[in-house]
Amino acid sequence: MTREGGENDPETEEVFLLEKNLWKPWPHTRTKVKGCLGYVKRVLFVVGDDWIFLFALGVIMALISFTIDFTVNKMLIAHWWLFQELGDNMLLKFLSWTVYPIALTAFSTGFAQSVCPESAGSGVPEVKTILTGVVLEEYLTIKNFGAKVVGMTCTLAAGSPIFLGKVGPFVHLSCMIAAYLGRMRASATNEYENKNKQYEMLVAGAAVAVSSCFGAPVSGVLFSVEVVSSHFAVRHYWRGFFAATCGACMFRLLAVFNSEQETILALFKTSFDIDFPFDLPEMIFFLVLGAVCGVMSCAYLFCQRWLLGYIRRNSVIVKLMAMEKAVYSGLVALLLSSITFPYGLGQFMASRLTMKELLYSLFDNNTWIVLTQNASLSRPHVVDPENLWLEWWDPTFTVYGTIAFFLVMKFWMLVLATTMPMPAGYFMPVFLYGAAIGRLFGEVVAYFFPNGIWTDGVLNLIIPGGYAVAGAAAFSGAVTHTLSTALLALEMTGQLSHILPVLLSVLVANAIAQRYQPSFYDGTIIVKKLPYIPRFWGSQKGSCMVTTDPYMNRNLAPVVKSWGFRDILNVLTSSADTEFPVVESEGSMVLLGSVARSELLYFLHSYTGQDTVVEGTPSSGLEKNVGEVCSIQPITFQLSTQTSLYQAHELFEILNAQLMFVTDGGKLVGSVTRKELRKAIEDLALGKTPV
Amino acid sequence: MTREGGENDPETEEVFLLEKNLWKPWPHTRTKVKGCLGYVKRVLFVVGDDWIFLFALGVIMALISFTIDFTVNKMLIAHWWLFQELGDNMLLKFLSWTVYPIALTAFSTGFAQSVCPESAGSGVPEVKTILTGVVLEEYLTIKNFGAKVVGMTCTLAAGSPIFLGKVGPFVHLSCMIAAYLGRMRASATNEYENKNKQYEMLVAGAAVAVSSCFGAPVSGVLFSVEVVSSHFAVRHYWRGFFAATCGACMFRLLAVFNSEQETILALFKTSFDIDFPFDLPEMIFFLVLGAVCGVMSCAYLFCQRWLLGYIRRNSVIVKLMAMEKAVYSGLVALLLSSITFPYGLGQFMASRLTMKELLYSLFDNNTWIVLTQNASLSRPHVVDPENLWLEWWDPTFTVYGTIAFFLVMKFWMLVLATTMPMPAGYFMPVFLYGAAIGRLFGEVVAYFFPNGIWTDGVLNLIIPGGYAVAGAAAFSGAVTHTLSTALLALEMTGQLSHILPVLLSVLVANAIAQRYQPSFYDGTIIVKKLPYIPRFWGSQKGSCMVTTDPYMNRNLAPVVKSWGFRDILNVLTSSADTEFPVVESEGSMVLLGSVARSELLYFLHSYTGQDTVVEGTPSSGLEKNVGEVCSIQPITFQLSTQTSLYQAHELFEILNAQLMFVTDGGKLVGSVTRKELRKAIEDLALGKTPV
Repeated sequence: MTREGGENDPETEEVFLLEKNLWKPWPHTRTKVKGCLGYVKRVLFVVGDDWIFLFALGVIMALISFTIDFTVNKMLIAHWWLFQELGDNMLLKFLSWTVYPIALTAFSTGFAQSVCPESAGSGVPEVKTILTGVVLEEYLTIKNFGAKVVGMTCTLAAGSPIFLGKVGPFVHLSCMIAAYLGRMRASATNEYENKNKQYEMLVAGAAVAVSSCFGAPVSGVLFSVEVVSSHFAVRHYWRGFFAATCGACMFRLLAVFNSEQETILALFKTSFDIDFPFDLPEMIFFLVLGAVCGVMSCAYLFCQRWLLGYIRRNSVIVKLMAMEKAVYSGLVALLLSSITFPYGLGQFMASRLTMKELLYSLFDNNTWIVLTQNASLSRPHVVDPENLWLEWWDPTFTVYGTIAFFLVMKFWMLVLATTMPMPAGYFMPVFLYGAAIGRLFGEVVAYFFPNGIWTDGVLNLIIPGGYAVAGAAAFSGAVTHTLSTALLALEMTGQLSHILPVLLSVLVANAIAQRYQPSFYDGTIIVKKLPYIPRFWGSQKGSCMVTTDPYMNRNLAPVVKSWGFRDILNVLTSSADTEFPVVESEGSMVLLGSVARSELLYFLHSYTGQDTVVEGTPSSGLEKNVGEVCSIQPITFQLSTQTSLYQAHELFEILNAQLMFVTDGGKLVGSVTRKELRKAIEDLALGKTPV
Repeated sequence: MTREGGENDPETEEVFLLEKNLWKPWPHTRTKVKGCLGYVKRVLFVVGDDWIFLFALGVIMALISFTIDFTVNKMLIAHWWLFQELGDNMLLKFLSWTVYPIALTAFSTGFAQSVCPESAGSGVPEVKTILTGVVLEEYLTIKNFGAKVVGMTCTLAAGSPIFLGKVGPFVHLSCMIAAYLGRMRASATNEYENKNKQYEMLVAGAAVAVSSCFGAPVSGVLFSVEVVSSHFAVRHYWRGFFAATCGACMFRLLAVFNSEQETILALFKTSFDIDFPFDLPEMIFFLVLGAVCGVMSCAYLFCQRWLLGYIRRNSVIVKLMAMEKAVYSGLVALLLSSITFPYGLGQFMASRLTMKELLYSLFDNNTWIVLTQNASLSRPHVVDPENLWLEWWDPTFTVYGTIAFFLVMKFWMLVLATTMPMPAGYFMPVFLYGAAIGRLFGEVVAYFFPNGIWTDGVLNLIIPGGYAVAGAAAFSGAVTHTLSTALLALEMTGQLSHILPVLLSVLVANAIAQRYQPSFYDGTIIVKKLPYIPRFWGSQKGSCMVTTDPYMNRNLAPVVKSWGFRDILNVLTSSADTEFPVVESEGSMVLLGSVARSELLYFLHSYTGQDTVVEGTPSSGLEKNVGEVCSIQPITFQLSTQTSLYQAHELFEILNAQLMFVTDGGKLVGSVTRKELRKAIEDLALGKTPV
């Protein structure tokens, strides 16, 4: 970036230059320039050098997002061109329709699995786990990055038959870039601060991802906070805002320079009537819509988790998955694309539209039921960008029939698609599915109230597009257990007029979903057996009566400060822990600190080394003990035997702790890790007293 | 609420009823009804009874907000009516213009000061302090509530000459209601959980306040989080959202029922062109506007703090303030209202408009410079609600002159108004001032680019209203050190189209303001000498090198577990601490826990009691020691001598701690409170190494 030389004292530098009897020209000028650069650097970095990295993060992610979108768009156009060019030969058309997604998904799966098997899936559950402090080595590597970018591009290019999205993997990608930038800037800081900075960068990374996917900076930050963390500092939120704004600006700027738009506008701009967006009694319909979305999301989450489990149990699929994951993906893609063939069942599912066009069409500000009263309608041969909604229209089924059919079919197709082991996002399909629920609901309301609800003179039609926005927000919010999808939907459409009804729908849907099902991400964490603490409301009965005593791990291997070689060797061979408590003496058990396994190993090594060198004088070697050689980490947090489960849970969440020791009057009596905590909470939920 | 009877076993109840040979009719039916009610109660409360209280909080605050607005509106109309009715007599007009605000502010000050002196000011700094865990008894009492409601209504009714707002006191009011509701629901929970629940209610209270002031639920939550806390749990954020949505819905519903509007709409609805809200190069102007607002906010914050200090130093004012605060307020009100007299200087400051109308007029979507090209303009005799902007127009000064004059005059008038010791909010005036800066900036841009910037065929005019929105968000954001004012401004105007430029302005303004000045609220906390930890960025040089060792308090009064009466008496008389560390023995100094002063006092009392009763056997009394009688609280957090200042700061902020003990290898060596921490951070900022 800037030159390092400016850091030195200019005068010393000058002497140094003169002494070397320089062959470089203009020594004085160069010194001055260096001084100036140094000054600029000091001024820029005085607030903290964060903002440069955050800016870089935002810009890089926007560029990646734009590039992927651009490539995917070209590939989709190519597919569509091929499909059109084949004329009336149905077999060829069918083949071109199905082979393209099959090839792409199979390649995506194969590539991802061979380069880095960890790149499969959305990556959000893993990011969430990493942010709780668990180290998942493979998930932030450059190999994973490559696999994910290529795999995701192919998945997206497979298009609407496969019906998968971009957000999840993009959050993961963004975190990888953030981790990389974080490592870059990790200089001259101590370990604690360093870890903290890395964490901050990761949180900002998640925010940038969402905002540069949708050009929605505010909800990007909020959504990422809700999804990936349970606790956050206002400081992180500012960082996130800055990075997300940079990302969103860049992303929308690129769209303008690519001549997609005249100026910076929302991604799925709607133009609802802002003077009368909805009538007061419609609030009740929005509440009902929220409840419907909540119930549907529970069904979806249940089925999705069940199918993921079934695939791991069914012997045929397990064998197939073990051998050839790509074949499995190909088979699923074949099934999905056959069903969506536009001359088959696909004509009742608007399958000629891409994902973007589907969302555009559902957010349409016209009331379709009014439009269909025009008798001379017919679906065009090629998709008409001005009248996307015609794809949803069928003379026999009407729009209600097609949307309902779409909802029924896509339900299981979406559940099936999520089982494919390739990089893919599951947020966008869920969002789109919710929009379809909302659209259907809105059209039904419009059918029953063709002239609006209160008609005192002015005709205020029902706007089903508003219901589509609310449905999208409510369903995706319920599936992911977040509220900020409300703002996300509004930012994506660029209109705030529906904010209150949308918020109400999202709140109702969330209340139902959070009551009965874990979120999509938590569900995946459970299925993948990643470390996880269940959601836990303090109001759960008895949570404050349960102390650490019944569930803590009493099977400790404490290290006494004065121990030597033999005792340490014993401890290390008898226990596989990575961290050991250090106590004053075996009798008193006063907790002094903790020592890492690696430190103890180092102690043993140094001991053996010493022994061989000064072979004749073992006494000098024996004098050294653990307390003198190893660096004992002081204990900052500890639980007591009277700490309630509620409080312990809170501490683990706030501090991202992995292990805490339990003391009773200064004496070590046990330890609690996330595993014990999880078991205790699960037992409590089942009504058992933890043992 | 629901009847308690349902809790009992129905059968026992039945027997009980039969035994009493009931004179009440329908015993069986009543038992069944009771059972049903009990079931409903169990179902409703199974998720936690929070939501009922949160709902109540939202509704109550919306009702209060609406009632205050309604009252203030009527009082303003009355004032205006009086002013109009007085015909052409300038003296009478001047008197009616000035006496009304003088009387109201004097009454507001007098009432607030006599009922509860703590009710003066905005209350946000105190709420912020309370949320860090400090107990400020007087600030959440019912007396304070009454004083604040009455005082605030009078302040608001004094109108635009006084130029004060509603948000701050409303946050305070909302927190009082929240604290009251929190105490109501505090049943059958342990102490820790209870404290936590109270905290949660307070956070929700702050969120509700902002959202039911402006009908802006999302930014209400975000703004309150940014202003009052430094750390928060996603769980609190959901609670806040729920309560804020209820509050905003109710507030806007009341406006509809009061026939102010046809349906739920934004409070200051704008109607900018959503197809071309701004041109790309305008982003640069928005950045410059952000920088201007940032610089102005620094000047404002500096002057405001200086004046607050000056008033406390100047002997004349100090004497006046000590004797008659109401007179001081009256004098200030006389000055302010004389200047704004509409037939004097006021005609160049649009002083005939109320605060709401001022904001409406500044957010106007017309370009004034275009409108003023119409030669036949003249300012109407009475304010024209359709053309509020005409109040800003003067044939000699032009709109530029009036807005500039407004900015210059209101700057010092606003600073002066904030010194009046009465309940008043300072957010709205700052927001309005920012809107005026933005409007002036936008009109200047429109003057230089009368035909828009890129004119390829279509004419896209500059929209100065957009700049006004950005200016309002940026200036208020810089003064309060928050980013969510960006969203607040958008929610208030109901349009999202300017989201990116507004965010950019706010970010730039904040970067400047946060670098050079403490926020408005922090400034007040400093002046009022409330406990406060300075904002502290980890990137500050050396923050990680400073350990607790140099700044901790070594002057401890540890209590030994085996101590009896005399030792405890000694400790209590020699130290005024409220919490004492308990150690194993004076030699080992192993930290066992902490004990509250009240517990030790109780110990002494029990001792004396025992002594008098069993006078003959002092040995039995002497046997009991502190460890046996007092409940010793276990230590959950402790610092070590190697903990860095950065980490210690983080822990205090996350855990809302007041006191932490410092140990070295299990041994107690010192303690750190917020006072020590603050001193260490301030010393570091001054470049000193803390001693």
